[in-house]
Amino acid sequence: MSFSSLIFGRRLANREHEDKKIGWIEAVPAMGLDGLGSSSYGPEAALTILIPLGAAGLFYLGPIMACIVALLAILYFSYRQTLAAYPTSGGAYVVAKENLGEHPSLVAAAALMIDYVLNVAVGVSAGVGALVSAIPSLHPYILPLCLGIVLIVMVANLRGTGEAGWLFALPTYLFIACFLGVIGYGVLRIAMEADPLPVVSPPPLEPPTAAVSLWLLMHAFASGCTAMTGVEAVSNGVGSFRQPVVRNAYATLTIIVVVLGLLLGGIATIATSFDIGAMDQMKEGYQSVLSQVIGAVSGYNAFYYVAMTSLLCILCLSANTSFVGFPRVCRMVAADGYLPKAFAQPGRRLVFTAGIVFLSGSAGLLLAAFGGITEKLIPLFAIGAFLTFTVSQAGMVVHWRRQSRNVPFKLAMNAVGTVATGLALIVILVAKFAEGAWITLVAVPMTIVLLKTIKSYYTSLEQELREPGPITIEDVEPPTVLVVTEEWNRLSERAIKYALTISPDVVAVHLIRLGGPEMDDDEKLLREKWRAEVEEPVAAKGLQPPRLMLIPAPYRQLHEPLLRLVEKLDLDSPERKVTVLIPEIIKEGWLQKLLHMNRAGRLRARLLRFGGPRLTVATVPWRLSQGVLT
Amino acid sequence: MSFSSLIFGRRLANREHEDKKIGWIEAVPAMGLDGLGSSSYGPEAALTILIPLGAAGLFYLGPIMACIVALLAILYFSYRQTLAAYPTSGGAYVVAKENLGEHPSLVAAAALMIDYVLNVAVGVSAGVGALVSAIPSLHPYILPLCLGIVLIVMVANLRGTGEAGWLFALPTYLFIACFLGVIGYGVLRIAMEADPLPVVSPPPLEPPTAAVSLWLLMHAFASGCTAMTGVEAVSNGVGSFRQPVVRNAYATLTIIVVVLGLLLGGIATIATSFDIGAMDQMKEGYQSVLSQVIGAVSGYNAFYYVAMTSLLCILCLSANTSFVGFPRVCRMVAADGYLPKAFAQPGRRLVFTAGIVFLSGSAGLLLAAFGGITEKLIPLFAIGAFLTFTVSQAGMVVHWRRQSRNVPFKLAMNAVGTVATGLALIVILVAKFAEGAWITLVAVPMTIVLLKTIKSYYTSLEQELREPGPITIEDVEPPTVLVVTEEWNRLSERAIKYALTISPDVVAVHLIRLGGPEMDDDEKLLREKWRAEVEEPVAAKGLQPPRLMLIPAPYRQLHEPLLRLVEKLDLDSPERKVTVLIPEIIKEGWLQKLLHMNRAGRLRARLLRFGGPRLTVATVPWRLSQGVLT
Repeated sequence: MSFSSLIFGRRLANREHEDKKIGWIEAVPAMGLDGLGSSSYGPEAALTILIPLGAAGLFYLGPIMACIVALLAILYFSYRQTLAAYPTSGGAYVVAKENLGEHPSLVAAAALMIDYVLNVAVGVSAGVGALVSAIPSLHPYILPLCLGIVLIVMVANLRGTGEAGWLFALPTYLFIACFLGVIGYGVLRIAMEADPLPVVSPPPLEPPTAAVSLWLLMHAFASGCTAMTGVEAVSNGVGSFRQPVVRNAYATLTIIVVVLGLLLGGIATIATSFDIGAMDQMKEGYQSVLSQVIGAVSGYNAFYYVAMTSLLCILCLSANTSFVGFPRVCRMVAADGYLPKAFAQPGRRLVFTAGIVFLSGSAGLLLAAFGGITEKLIPLFAIGAFLTFTVSQAGMVVHWRRQSRNVPFKLAMNAVGTVATGLALIVILVAKFAEGAWITLVAVPMTIVLLKTIKSYYTSLEQELREPGPITIEDVEPPTVLVVTEEWNRLSERAIKYALTISPDVVAVHLIRLGGPEMDDDEKLLREKWRAEVEEPVAAKGLQPPRLMLIPAPYRQLHEPLLRLVEKLDLDSPERKVTVLIPEIIKEGWLQKLLHMNRAGRLRARLLRFGGPRLTVATVPWRLSQGVLT
Repeated sequence: MSFSSLIFGRRLANREHEDKKIGWIEAVPAMGLDGLGSSSYGPEAALTILIPLGAAGLFYLGPIMACIVALLAILYFSYRQTLAAYPTSGGAYVVAKENLGEHPSLVAAAALMIDYVLNVAVGVSAGVGALVSAIPSLHPYILPLCLGIVLIVMVANLRGTGEAGWLFALPTYLFIACFLGVIGYGVLRIAMEADPLPVVSPPPLEPPTAAVSLWLLMHAFASGCTAMTGVEAVSNGVGSFRQPVVRNAYATLTIIVVVLGLLLGGIATIATSFDIGAMDQMKEGYQSVLSQVIGAVSGYNAFYYVAMTSLLCILCLSANTSFVGFPRVCRMVAADGYLPKAFAQPGRRLVFTAGIVFLSGSAGLLLAAFGGITEKLIPLFAIGAFLTFTVSQAGMVVHWRRQSRNVPFKLAMNAVGTVATGLALIVILVAKFAEGAWITLVAVPMTIVLLKTIKSYYTSLEQELREPGPITIEDVEPPTVLVVTEEWNRLSERAIKYALTISPDVVAVHLIRLGGPEMDDDEKLLREKWRAEVEEPVAAKGLQPPRLMLIPAPYRQLHEPLLRLVEKLDLDSPERKVTVLIPEIIKEGWLQKLLHMNRAGRLRARLLRFGGPRLTVATVPWRLSQGVLT
């Protein structure tokens, strides 16, 4: 069992594809971590904006969260329709491509790709940030922890999400149980008790420093919208569901959205009733909103620690949602030629290796560049998500209009979705423009230019190689075969023997002073040996004997004199093909490679790159017997 | 003009070899920096050991330095004889190989190689240490400074010592002029004035803390011997002298040894007369012995700073001596098969690139491992030098004994050299065993084992490939040609056309589901197209039409199904050769490489490595037109 089998698992056959697909039980942890985890930072982000209003801020939390939950509901029903209409791949890229054309689809692709990369960096660093504030002694290791988590998630995804499911399933379902439980209990207390008292009183709210304004409320809404960024994942990952695909996708989406909606609504209710506000993260004694919520509802008991641990795990692993979405988006974009073909090629475990590795690499670079503190990037990534929502919904509207039968209700649903997410996008853009939203507005077009450049390369490549029509055979005269020889040994013997089977016109080329000015090539001896060992035996068989050419290599390079010789042959007989035959000792492992100069490999590369159009390069391998290697 | 031409200079032809050789004027800086620079640390090292004796220590300095200068004189005359006897390469390795056999020559080679690597690390870090104590603000940059100097010296040597001569010549001749001047003036003052007073009084000597002992004097002698480590360089570098070689070598050796001898003697005289002792480097106000010497003779004037600057440059660049010796030693060892062949191959500038790069790399690693502070390694490297001296002299003794005519004087001279350096080696070994000399005693045999392992690889390789005798031709039946095709395009067309010129037996292989489980290969369409576009036109020409084989690639790898097919063909007709033809788009630059999966290259490597003995792999290149690339 090799090292890579141990780490990544054995190579899977194409026919195992179906076995590796997942149902909703595995899909909720795989695709839902981002969405569920955002329940912890969405309400907190909105409350943070409301801090200047003091206690009055809590009055506005309810309406803002109601808007967000309503938006979530609209999105939910819109996406259900998308999943039903595009059961093999319901991502925004495909929907936009089919219905809106090239540019909208590239906008969706670019926005999604940027969003997914940001989500990994931001998700991991936020999770590690929470971990470090829980265990301050880990503070010096922020960056290694971040990179370690990216590595773990990467390896888990290279193995395949199905198998590594338990890594994500345990904390996910624990989180759902804990938080639905505590928040349900809290809401129940509020409903039952006349004036419920917090078990642990939250710290008093700061005195107000500003009056309420539309701008501030817009800002709070925009910040709260970060709670919705994970919703697109199910539609991008729809290809990984097992049969019945649509029902599995529905179940997954429903669980994620309903749990998220309940959490958001519950948190808003409890925060309002118990006077819980956001605290300044920079100040001593900071507590997150969720921590205060559990404290107020049930106190700091053992349950508190279990719940907070599950939250911590969820935050750390929320990057996984990107690992489900990103490679699949890239795969579809690559299949259309906008990304390198490697992104469309399933790897040893039938996952899209290139996408997974690229995502990990770019998120790792981002984390390293910011030292593992990427919270400043949070405002950037709601825009990508809402841009995607809007394009995807708009595509669905066109989709329904194109149907032969009338589907007014479905069309209306997606139209409402388009308008709602579009309006939210505008609010977020305006509210967060200066905070970094403009970066996304610059990055998306730049990515589109890159995608189109790649596409134009593939298009002209295809143009150049396009179907030639029926093959045209002028003549089948064998090529002139040049055999590169260093001395008369078994390697050259094998090459000459092979050369004689493909052409009667064989020339052995020996380069003089290849080894430098102090090299002593005895030309006379070489020629004599050639006559006795090669020319005479071959002629005796009635075959045309191979000639020996001694050519100086004044610059100690193999390819130069050979290319000059090929050029000369081209001039002499312009129709003739030339094949250069390189005998090569096959090196196994880097230790053996160190002992050879890889002249054969370098010569082949140079000849292939700089040779004329009629040049072919063949390698006659010599595999060493085991005795030599050990 | 390419980037590498700018840095390293244009590629030199073999015939320019002679023009690049150097005379004694260039050779003194190139080969002498180590020797001359050691005048600064040899006496200082001896005096440091004498510190515990207090003022009485100075009494013993004279005799110790006299011993060292005498040893130097013996070495000088011995090496003159070596140079005359081996004018193409007078290094210890060659002398030992010719006269003493394999093992002594490997001892010399290993000792020299280790010594040269250590010399680079130690020389550069000592130079930077002196620089940093002169300009303390550079202290945080010790390691980057060290690595930068190694890089500069490496690039200078990759260009060729001749051309980069000024870099080394200026400080060298300045150093010689300054220090011969000031020390000559000091000795003159001592001779002329009755009781010469120091211009600046050296700090008073520490009170004695120990009594004199043989052990202490041996130790002082052993430490002082580090002044002689640079003497071997001329004999190793003799191949780079222009005609008349021996006279140039004599002149170089003479200048280096005479200047070094005068400096050592002069320093000893002045130190004794002016009561100059070594100071503890760790203590505040540390001054080196040479700094005190100039201060005492002529004071701290402008001249002082010029002289100390030249010394600093010499120390920093003293690594260059290794760059002259190491690649040439490796070259000779590699030519005999004890090191990878690459070490014997002259590079673009006719220098031995592999040796230069390896020396820089290993010294750089050593520096990085010790953070640029490698002074602890100083005791290690006198042993390598004296081991080499002894082996080389012993070899010369055997050389003279083998001569037909009697040369008693020459024999005696080298015999004295052998005994003297051998005794010195024993003294150094005993005195410095615990300080690290044992490391050399471990490293030399380990290196020898490595060299012999490499040699045994090359020997069995040669055995396997040894001259086959006259070529034996059984038959020249053309091979079965397998053409790897992805679709019917110009690339496959060219490959099929070429295949038809070398064999009538052509099979096109198309792999099914290579792109993964969701790939949709329309087999019927493929077969129909093949019949219309290939089989029929070829048959119409009266040729045997190429068949199309569709083979599943269940694991999405090209090489596996192909190797299985080759195996099957081997079984069907065990005598038949098989050639796999791979059409390849030639990628220019890494950007284009990113856009392709390099399937052709990976397939070729796998087939060559795992194919049977009758398999040949040919590449039909397709160079893209400029339109595609831009």
